[in-house]
Amino acid sequence: MSREALCHRLGYHFTQAGLLNRALTHRSYSAEHNERLEFLGDSVLNCVIASHLFDSFQHLPEGDLSRLRSNLVNQQTLFVLAQQQYLGDLLRLGEGERKSAGFRRPSILADALEAVFGAVFLDGGFEAAKKVVLGLYVPFIAKTDIQTLGKDSKTLLQEHLQSRKLPLPTYTVSAIEGEAHAQLFKVECRIDALKLSTQGEGSSRRNAEQQAAETAFLQITKKSN
Amino acid sequence: MSREALCHRLGYHFTQAGLLNRALTHRSYSAEHNERLEFLGDSVLNCVIASHLFDSFQHLPEGDLSRLRSNLVNQQTLFVLAQQQYLGDLLRLGEGERKSAGFRRPSILADALEAVFGAVFLDGGFEAAKKVVLGLYVPFIAKTDIQTLGKDSKTLLQEHLQSRKLPLPTYTVSAIEGEAHAQLFKVECRIDALKLSTQGEGSSRRNAEQQAAETAFLQITKKSN
Repeated sequence: MSREALCHRLGYHFTQAGLLNRALTHRSYSAEHNERLEFLGDSVLNCVIASHLFDSFQHLPEGDLSRLRSNLVNQQTLFVLAQQQYLGDLLRLGEGERKSAGFRRPSILADALEAVFGAVFLDGGFEAAKKVVLGLYVPFIAKTDIQTLGKDSKTLLQEHLQSRKLPLPTYTVSAIEGEAHAQLFKVECRIDALKLSTQGEGSSRRNAEQQAAETAFLQITKKSN
Repeated sequence: MSREALCHRLGYHFTQAGLLNRALTHRSYSAEHNERLEFLGDSVLNCVIASHLFDSFQHLPEGDLSRLRSNLVNQQTLFVLAQQQYLGDLLRLGEGERKSAGFRRPSILADALEAVFGAVFLDGGFEAAKKVVLGLYVPFIAKTDIQTLGKDSKTLLQEHLQSRKLPLPTYTVSAIEGEAHAQLFKVECRIDALKLSTQGEGSSRRNAEQQAAETAFLQITKKSN
């Protein structure tokens, strides 16, 4: 995978090739690294995604737009997209990072992709950056369930039950085990109307509830599909 | 203050006047309110300021750029700029908000200004929005001490002492008063090299230290100016 191939896949060819070099340079490699470009690219990405969501989902309120955006611009999504572009093959890393497989680390790859967006913005302006960002994101968004993206399991379960006009689930702590500093909470999630009871465990009551809700949600939606 | 005067001051005239109307409409007034535009404008503002700081401060590392940006796009700064534009005179508020002086509330004014940025972006594109944002922000940035903006008092004090090659201050809790749920911490900040001791109070040790550091910083920089 070469830089030329990356540019071809991104659909953008740099006038200032040095900008792409810099975007692909981790701080472990050189003082001329990509962190300032990452700062810039992060804000460009946020703006492009906000604008795209604003246009695409005309009836979604601000809160849903925010939730969608924060889940589209987070490290995990950027990491997936960076891998699709084989960005790890092109990174310039210091020896330590190379030996510890830094080219596979989510934070390094995600930051480098943001830096690439920043480099395109500097080189070609907002519209060029928008084209590159959407070139990667539109196929990703198309494969994503916008309704559920970034919602926690309790919310998903509640919304599903409400849509079927069913009463809300009840959560009960069935046990707290372990020492004070390492407690394990066990929670039951009951949905009487569906004669369903699921269990969840976690280091906090909240986590245990989420796990129980997730199991319930998966069981119900599997049945009702 | 009319809408025409606002456009004149912003240096932007809308093709779609409805967008400006909507940007100035609070949710208490109509279902056609400005919250989605605010979501969009917030991201446009972030991107424009990031790009401006990136260009203006070529030697600032990413962390300083982030600190500056977050202090320039926060509610307090937006509120100041919205007041300068007399935005409160043009807001469309529901009766309840009008009676409780919502047109002076920082969050309502800050959100409306972001919505105006979003409206310009939709109407005229990124470059038009950039011009409007920078028209308001460049004079504001010029009046701001970029070195200190958004830094807390302990950091400012530490950096000042380091620049004079002096030892760091020591912080000591001198008293904790009050009941467990409403404690008052008293902290002493001592700088032996300057024979200086200041006091601070707060609901947490951290707050008390910050107050003591602020007093020390003001005393030292007053003397040394």
